[in-house]
Amino acid sequence: MIMQSFQPPRRILMGPGPSDVSPRVLAAMARPTIGHLDPEFQSLMEEIKGALQRLFNAPDHACVPLPAPGTAGMEAAIMNLLEPGDRAVIAVNGAFGGRMADMAGRAGATVVTVDHDWGQPVDVKRVEAALAEAPTKVLAFVHAETSTGARSDAGPLCALARKYGALSVVDTVTSLGGIAVDVAGWDADVVYSGTQKCLSAPPGLSPIALSKRAQEAIRNRKEKVRNWLLDFNLLMSYWGGPDGSGGGGRTYHHTAPINALYGLHESLVVLFEEGQQAAIVRHAKMHQALAAGLEAAGLKLLVDEAHRLPQLNAVVVPDGVDEAGVRNHVLKNWDLELGAGLGPLKGKVWRIGLMGASATPWHVRLCLTALCEALAAQGVKLDAAAVLAAADAKLAA
Amino acid sequence: MIMQSFQPPRRILMGPGPSDVSPRVLAAMARPTIGHLDPEFQSLMEEIKGALQRLFNAPDHACVPLPAPGTAGMEAAIMNLLEPGDRAVIAVNGAFGGRMADMAGRAGATVVTVDHDWGQPVDVKRVEAALAEAPTKVLAFVHAETSTGARSDAGPLCALARKYGALSVVDTVTSLGGIAVDVAGWDADVVYSGTQKCLSAPPGLSPIALSKRAQEAIRNRKEKVRNWLLDFNLLMSYWGGPDGSGGGGRTYHHTAPINALYGLHESLVVLFEEGQQAAIVRHAKMHQALAAGLEAAGLKLLVDEAHRLPQLNAVVVPDGVDEAGVRNHVLKNWDLELGAGLGPLKGKVWRIGLMGASATPWHVRLCLTALCEALAAQGVKLDAAAVLAAADAKLAA
Repeated sequence: MIMQSFQPPRRILMGPGPSDVSPRVLAAMARPTIGHLDPEFQSLMEEIKGALQRLFNAPDHACVPLPAPGTAGMEAAIMNLLEPGDRAVIAVNGAFGGRMADMAGRAGATVVTVDHDWGQPVDVKRVEAALAEAPTKVLAFVHAETSTGARSDAGPLCALARKYGALSVVDTVTSLGGIAVDVAGWDADVVYSGTQKCLSAPPGLSPIALSKRAQEAIRNRKEKVRNWLLDFNLLMSYWGGPDGSGGGGRTYHHTAPINALYGLHESLVVLFEEGQQAAIVRHAKMHQALAAGLEAAGLKLLVDEAHRLPQLNAVVVPDGVDEAGVRNHVLKNWDLELGAGLGPLKGKVWRIGLMGASATPWHVRLCLTALCEALAAQGVKLDAAAVLAAADAKLAA
Repeated sequence: MIMQSFQPPRRILMGPGPSDVSPRVLAAMARPTIGHLDPEFQSLMEEIKGALQRLFNAPDHACVPLPAPGTAGMEAAIMNLLEPGDRAVIAVNGAFGGRMADMAGRAGATVVTVDHDWGQPVDVKRVEAALAEAPTKVLAFVHAETSTGARSDAGPLCALARKYGALSVVDTVTSLGGIAVDVAGWDADVVYSGTQKCLSAPPGLSPIALSKRAQEAIRNRKEKVRNWLLDFNLLMSYWGGPDGSGGGGRTYHHTAPINALYGLHESLVVLFEEGQQAAIVRHAKMHQALAAGLEAAGLKLLVDEAHRLPQLNAVVVPDGVDEAGVRNHVLKNWDLELGAGLGPLKGKVWRIGLMGASATPWHVRLCLTALCEALAAQGVKLDAAAVLAAADAKLAA
């Protein structure tokens, strides 16, 4: 077997993540590797911690990037907070709520799910009813369901956790950087995300924020965490002491993925140059343009307007249209990646991401052009010029 | 706070890892990110699986790179194989054996450690005595102890596991690519490594090989694995079916760290171009040269010659020499990173890595030059020219 260097093809990433990575972030990934215990690397770690506090709006939380993809943030939150016998209430309104419930069972918890139809936001009243039934250690939910494009209302849900003495766990994998994530305002306990969505860095890291309440609960566990790599009692010492303040010195734990952290750092430099609020406004505007174009093409979004994520658009596949055929067409003819549906939405929706560097007018216009062509190839009658004009009107606004 | 792009300083990496990463691997990391479900990326995954089988010499094992640093390989091996009540015998002759024992406890196993002085190889007879005491599910040991530089004899230890009906777990984080790793020859069950040692890719991935026996044991577990991200029953479906053959299709699990996998792939292209055997010979030769120079400088290695790892040299700090002072000197004056001792060896040894792209004559000569200067600065009398000449004689051989 002769192996040759891998040269990736051109791709325009408008699926559920990864999103397009900017050349600046790619260039940062290629800078020379230095040691993870190097004083200069430790300065970088401190800067990343501060930047994540700013990104999450979590000045009093310990914030670090975990050395594995977004799922590691979920696993860390669940495994560190829950012990055998603890009760966990988990809102399930898509694939990722279901994953949380699976993990909570592995932690030994008694798991109560509050199940919703996919595409719906989490119902605050039904969650309250579940919390009122019995003392609960953790309330977990997904802020931005990547599998459906639904946004849930994180503030009231975190407030419920406080009211019933539970710790809140919030999945912001797809929301962070694309819509407002306000950890301090929500008074949330453990909030995690990923790098490959609205931060537009490659996948492989999971930024996470821990409240002082969560830190205390983890310190006071009866049993060891069922995970060594993600055990915050060990991991935080590597990142500078029990509360991540740097006051406790540093202890070797794992070896940080150094070049991936260069990439995350640069993606934060890029984001703060634009401004977090400006980035949020940009995501909203691109969504308005895409949605206008989709409407002009006669397509419908799965989620009600009030709960739609701008960065993840689940588009209902019209009757008679071959879902995979459309994705294959745009991949083949436009190097454009769109997402398929998961679970009960398989074959029923396309997922169009407008995340980070993929949330630009160019992406919106390319996507609508490619989609119109693919639909026309399947015999759907539509006016591609009118579709683009509808989007352009929003882009010009 | 104004954040600026991070520009790493020049560093020559001769600690216990990461090692110097070649420009080719860094360039590969910077190629455009494509989707993890893209057909082209799936071809890359297949190629990496095959290359890992070749690297481990494990044609009948399922081989994949886990999406987190080397410790994830250890955690995956332990957490997938062990269930509550299982007995595990773990040889501890350094920091990493101890870590395995900690993890096995978290898996709910009954843990029996066979403890050694740090710097000693694992004692096959004492391990056999522990296995003979009671039925055992897992025998785990470290092939190449990064904390001490000791190589243990993997073949006889794996044979003992077979004899007593246990599954073997072998840590080859520091050995793979630097000395022979022969998974088929050893008839080993679960063998894992890291990317930042002798493969000279950045840290962040953990290649792992699973025997058919191990796969069957994992399929037949009574309880779910206490780890979702590293649960092979889920993870292997992402990598192409239960046995990783690709026959079962692919199921979304996590999002692979795409650019890190570009880097691993390129590091394997580089290694196979050189030839695995040639790389092993190179590591041995660089070690001979370094050891000759150290001897000429009056320095001693911690580990007996018969069990020394060429790629990890633990050098005893002479009486009266300030251990950290020497490391600080070479870092400040030569941009050279050497490793400190861990645990009971803290302050007592330096760890000098000759791994992958850091195993060259240039590195050996630079290291000896810098070390002589640092020792002279502390009043140690030595003849630097004679030290280099001793190394050069071996390099010329």
